[in-house]
Amino acid sequence: MKVRIHVSLKPGVLDPQGRAVHHALESLGFSGVQDVRIGRLIELDLADGTSDEAIDEMCRKLLANMVIENYRIEKPELAA
Amino acid sequence: MKVRIHVSLKPGVLDPQGRAVHHALESLGFSGVQDVRIGRLIELDLADGTSDEAIDEMCRKLLANMVIENYRIEKPELAA
Repeated sequence: MKVRIHVSLKPGVLDPQGRAVHHALESLGFSGVQDVRIGRLIELDLADGTSDEAIDEMCRKLLANMVIENYRIEKPELAA
Repeated sequence: MKVRIHVSLKPGVLDPQGRAVHHALESLGFSGVQDVRIGRLIELDLADGTSDEAIDEMCRKLLANMVIENYRIEKPELAA
């Protein structure tokens, strides 16, 4: 079972990596870039019986820093 | 215009960060984790007229390392 976790910084939290990429895009001549924010995309390959609660616990305990980050769980196979 | 870029390692490329997270999940007692791969999620806020070609060029020139990474462009607003 493949599961994707999207981890992104909460609104208002400073994103120095995103700011550096923003400047780099402008230096390369790309205009019209208003904001850049960078998060993580974690692809988990889990045993089929893994419960939603277990996935949620993985996020809260390890994958996301709940103080400054939000996470979203996406199950691509359920959509098919 | 909000655009999301998903950047992930190409299949076969070693992912030490993913391996570390895999071991950490097992140490925390989560069973059934078969694989973990970690990529980046880049959220761009662009001027409305930005062409697909320009976004593609940003990915190829800066956001993704085309030697070892794939990217996928997602435009959430077009789906609405």
